[in-house]
Amino acid sequence: MYDTKAYSAASATSPLVSTRIPRRDPTAHDVQIEILFCGICHTDLHSARNEWGNAVYPIVPGHEIVGRVARVGSAVTRYKPGDLAAVGCLVDSDRTCPSCVEGLEQFCPNQIMVFNAPDKHLGGVTYGGYSDSIVVDERYVLRVPTNLDPAAAAPLLCAGITTYSPLRHWGITKGKKVGVVGLGGLGHMGVKFAHAFGAHVVVFTTSPGKTEDALRLGADEAVVSRDAGEMQKHAGSFDYILDTVSADHDVNAFLNLLRHDGNMTLVGAPAKPLSVAAFGLIIGRRSLSGSNIGGIAETQEMLDFCGANNITADVEVIPIQKVNDAYERLLKSDVKYRFSIDMASLGSE
Amino acid sequence: MYDTKAYSAASATSPLVSTRIPRRDPTAHDVQIEILFCGICHTDLHSARNEWGNAVYPIVPGHEIVGRVARVGSAVTRYKPGDLAAVGCLVDSDRTCPSCVEGLEQFCPNQIMVFNAPDKHLGGVTYGGYSDSIVVDERYVLRVPTNLDPAAAAPLLCAGITTYSPLRHWGITKGKKVGVVGLGGLGHMGVKFAHAFGAHVVVFTTSPGKTEDALRLGADEAVVSRDAGEMQKHAGSFDYILDTVSADHDVNAFLNLLRHDGNMTLVGAPAKPLSVAAFGLIIGRRSLSGSNIGGIAETQEMLDFCGANNITADVEVIPIQKVNDAYERLLKSDVKYRFSIDMASLGSE
Repeated sequence: MYDTKAYSAASATSPLVSTRIPRRDPTAHDVQIEILFCGICHTDLHSARNEWGNAVYPIVPGHEIVGRVARVGSAVTRYKPGDLAAVGCLVDSDRTCPSCVEGLEQFCPNQIMVFNAPDKHLGGVTYGGYSDSIVVDERYVLRVPTNLDPAAAAPLLCAGITTYSPLRHWGITKGKKVGVVGLGGLGHMGVKFAHAFGAHVVVFTTSPGKTEDALRLGADEAVVSRDAGEMQKHAGSFDYILDTVSADHDVNAFLNLLRHDGNMTLVGAPAKPLSVAAFGLIIGRRSLSGSNIGGIAETQEMLDFCGANNITADVEVIPIQKVNDAYERLLKSDVKYRFSIDMASLGSE
Repeated sequence: MYDTKAYSAASATSPLVSTRIPRRDPTAHDVQIEILFCGICHTDLHSARNEWGNAVYPIVPGHEIVGRVARVGSAVTRYKPGDLAAVGCLVDSDRTCPSCVEGLEQFCPNQIMVFNAPDKHLGGVTYGGYSDSIVVDERYVLRVPTNLDPAAAAPLLCAGITTYSPLRHWGITKGKKVGVVGLGGLGHMGVKFAHAFGAHVVVFTTSPGKTEDALRLGADEAVVSRDAGEMQKHAGSFDYILDTVSADHDVNAFLNLLRHDGNMTLVGAPAKPLSVAAFGLIIGRRSLSGSNIGGIAETQEMLDFCGANNITADVEVIPIQKVNDAYERLLKSDVKYRFSIDMASLGSE
């Protein structure tokens, strides 16, 4: 066991502050990673403030981790010191259930999240990426293409896979018309991937000011979703819509834009139940689905795709000392499009 | 043009009464059918009472039609007088749109329904199956296997295809665990088909009294959906759930019973929007879909399947003079499981 620097919250109403946390020494299959950058996901804020009611304190958020391998256990074969590596939401699963066997660890009933989950090694709960260092079984460690900027690659581990996976699962390719609702951390990655897959991409935003940026990110069109006339022009025309909005919003307006057999997938999670008109699904055999991250193999596939296509997130790099400000700005969607914490800043703590 | 006997409603608050309606003489591609039986679908009642706001009066409902071919046009090749034939919801479509070309006429934007739709031949609106006779283009006429009881085959044209089509579309076969929510006109057909496809079938009902009947119809299990403990035993275990309930109900309780990548399909249409918890879809990549009848080719496939497997609806045969009583009983779910009107009773009008 060794100590490492981290930022943690002591309660739902406490700011994140500098602390030290224990990490296990690498066992035979473990990889010890010196964290370079960690993205800030809205989930970090939900958890730190106990908005989902399951937080265990002190809590160290962070599940978009990119770093450099510092040490490896004796049985590790795929990583060596100096490698650029990443860790996402999952750091363990039971490895034996049908989902794990299929490589769909995101559905494992015994999955272990990188933070705020039971830590079978040290007891207590797991601590996330707002930290100097982390130790993870190599089965759950990802390889980061070396041509990618590590700061901008970090958000791929959640915002990236959360949008890549459904676009792949629902077969988005050239010739498909794809909508992306919301242009934030998730949405801007959805646009990049859908564009890279060859789709005709339409961004729906409530902010006319985001239109130009949508086109820059790869969208073919941008529609202000509050403009009913603009929306009507697209009625019944979409093969697929990726809904990244976690604020309350009217999903029916988007369901009506799907052609027959079209699918709309929620990757944002509004706290209040959605109001869904049954006819909007029945007419045209449409579907409303959800999706959450992806399996380990698919996360690696996504990173490799990003390497081959030079795709990363648009990030604002901040020192960890700014993390509480960043949370406040996140609540106002005041970031283009993801904060990435430079962990070198922990050195001064 | 010729006259035929029918039952029609003169307004949203009028009972159905005996009347006479015009039918066109068969053109080259038309089939004239002497109607033997017509099932009563809840849609008939919604339309007769203008509950969807689009009724044109007088209205002659009825879209579950089985009869005998009386006359055929000069170019008709597939039917001859004396054949047992059927007509469902669709009597025309544009035949040229991508949906029609695919054989998915149920998605054609220019589809013509058998009643209350613009009649391009005679003007006014089309008149449905509560009638002695009907004339339909042979492209939209179905062949009824002669081993089936025509009275019990009539509901196959809507209740049958509405449940057969989604079960086929979502790949229900042996080895799948399938739920059917609600045991009415649609639900009892869903049970029969899912069982015939080899699935393990679980019926969900709010009426403990229906358990025995569910098993008789082909279900392997019946669960009283108000019993949270019974529901919990099935959490995360269903591949597919067919929801046939058109009354307001909690769909989340059923979504939570789906395994990952499971689908629940609505074929009933609650008037009020459904309240859908996003997490129920996001966790497990589940889908909520809708489905409505099927194409002409698939409707024929369904009828042929019913012939080969001796499947029909459980019907209560009534004379047309009881149709208004039947509507009242339908509102109380007081029928096992579909009314079928014996059109011979029109002879006494």
